[in-house]
Amino acid sequence: MLRIALIGATGAVGRECLALLDAGAVPLAEVVPVASARSAGTDLAAELDLSLPLAPLTPLEEWDRTGADVALLCAGAEISRREGERLAAAGALVVDNSSAFRMRPDVPLVVPQVNPGALAERPGSGLVANPNCSTIQLVRALQPLHKLAGLDDVVVATYQAASGGGLRGLAELGEASARMLSDVGAPAEPPGRFGQPLAFNLVPEIGLPDETGFAHEERKLACEPRKILGLPELRITATAVRVPVFHCHCEAVRIRVRRPVTAAQVEDALAATPGIRLYRRTDAVPYPMPRFAAARTEDRALVHVGRVRVEPDDPHGVWLWVVADNLWVGAASNAVEIVELAVKHGWLG
Amino acid sequence: MLRIALIGATGAVGRECLALLDAGAVPLAEVVPVASARSAGTDLAAELDLSLPLAPLTPLEEWDRTGADVALLCAGAEISRREGERLAAAGALVVDNSSAFRMRPDVPLVVPQVNPGALAERPGSGLVANPNCSTIQLVRALQPLHKLAGLDDVVVATYQAASGGGLRGLAELGEASARMLSDVGAPAEPPGRFGQPLAFNLVPEIGLPDETGFAHEERKLACEPRKILGLPELRITATAVRVPVFHCHCEAVRIRVRRPVTAAQVEDALAATPGIRLYRRTDAVPYPMPRFAAARTEDRALVHVGRVRVEPDDPHGVWLWVVADNLWVGAASNAVEIVELAVKHGWLG
Repeated sequence: MLRIALIGATGAVGRECLALLDAGAVPLAEVVPVASARSAGTDLAAELDLSLPLAPLTPLEEWDRTGADVALLCAGAEISRREGERLAAAGALVVDNSSAFRMRPDVPLVVPQVNPGALAERPGSGLVANPNCSTIQLVRALQPLHKLAGLDDVVVATYQAASGGGLRGLAELGEASARMLSDVGAPAEPPGRFGQPLAFNLVPEIGLPDETGFAHEERKLACEPRKILGLPELRITATAVRVPVFHCHCEAVRIRVRRPVTAAQVEDALAATPGIRLYRRTDAVPYPMPRFAAARTEDRALVHVGRVRVEPDDPHGVWLWVVADNLWVGAASNAVEIVELAVKHGWLG
Repeated sequence: MLRIALIGATGAVGRECLALLDAGAVPLAEVVPVASARSAGTDLAAELDLSLPLAPLTPLEEWDRTGADVALLCAGAEISRREGERLAAAGALVVDNSSAFRMRPDVPLVVPQVNPGALAERPGSGLVANPNCSTIQLVRALQPLHKLAGLDDVVVATYQAASGGGLRGLAELGEASARMLSDVGAPAEPPGRFGQPLAFNLVPEIGLPDETGFAHEERKLACEPRKILGLPELRITATAVRVPVFHCHCEAVRIRVRRPVTAAQVEDALAATPGIRLYRRTDAVPYPMPRFAAARTEDRALVHVGRVRVEPDDPHGVWLWVVADNLWVGAASNAVEIVELAVKHGWLG
């Protein structure tokens, strides 16, 4: 029976973690929700209709950090850098949802469906990193293709939803869209959560660019899959774009593989992979779309893949269209599944 | 002084052609606007505030097809297939905006900024093809890179606006978005102009797929640039996606070039190309966005390019983000510029 501290409990990902824990993912003694003082007064149990054993919402500033078996960090990289090692030193297994520790060699970067072996033993650092949302769905779709034909070169263009900007991002998109529709001549809204207005627009840069011009989201998409897939030399490059969609990140992925393939082989490999739903062009719904792919709860845990094509003049060139709920597949459920693996390995309690 | 017949005059592209002709692009005797009988009663001169010499709107069914120096076909491939050769036989230079004739060897496929030489002499067929909207902005951005370093492999992911679905597409996006915002629980709107609901959604297939799975828009993006650039062996492949944006197509383009380059070299080559506006990440507006790039009339003729990056571990890997007004750069202005070239060459009048 676990005592889990959930830091960032009132945010978009924190709420999804609570829903998953409430559904019985792991045996619980207590969940301690922690958030900034700004969130004081939020009644999570009522808002989310929770029946799990939930402690009162605790301000981070006043929180006694001892006694947690697991600390789920869902409050951004700055809080993770400040709290992560301290919580690990206090004995918790820290599952961090930020980019703070992902590339550290002593921190496993884990997608349970892809590299559960990275959790063969409890890491000495006490830290396990949850990959970036756009990475998780990508590597889950890439792995069957790697097993089938070997990855050579991966080019990714993303179409990322407003929910990646949290509850504030979702609200901004809705409000600004409504304003634009009711008053076409109104001045553009001020840049908000996405650095630029997102309503009926595309923001083609997510996170800060470094001196190469690649933005933080793009650098994560290049580095993290190499670590997770155990392919340090993999050629992989991305452009990441925010789109005016509420939920689900989408990715157009062009992969060059080492051995020639047919589209039927790729489709069969994907269809045989647990956790992937394949869409064939003869299906009633011929491809996944962000507004519908994860609208039902039972679809939220899946990576939805469609538009499988092999280039007519090159049997090494494969395209996939990959869609997943970035808060669920891309964050909360991956984190909770890491806790499940830790329970299974007997590290906790 | 030209007599120009404009078939499809009341559609989204037809209206843009009228605006360009009204601005004095070529010397005009008369413009004869032709449309289907459904458009009867449309007062284009009043709606668009035109002062050019405009004949009354003529139903296609009743139109006397003789006497035009130029016929601009902007009414879709079916009408083009029916009318194109007939109009050419009647003596008009036919500039066709559809996909009907683009790949025919006796029909030049022309982007005046890229391959004006294809119009060195009047084609015996009497037909000139305007490329696909997404092709035009792509090849205008690719050509300076080809001159600089040689194109080897081009991967394109598109983000295409609702205006590509014409006036009906624009109206559908606005109306469905407003409905969704005012009633979150409402059932999804029926599939309309885009085959699937577009409001707060992505439709990752544009046009019908063939037996390879590649959709019509994607096949055009692979074939047309090869012909325009004169590179029949160019490796080029695309995924085309409709996004909930009103105007301007965007493209994330990853190019492998034959000779190593730096980002500064690529930026300088683009900045020196007429008709391209380069955005550097240190600029006040650091990258082009569809909602703003072509909001001012003087920006509508430009191809907007930003996010120039060279992969840190591969000086042959280049990314561009290419934005242009698909109705203007991608259709009307390219067609009218073809007419201007024909005038310059003395083929008309």
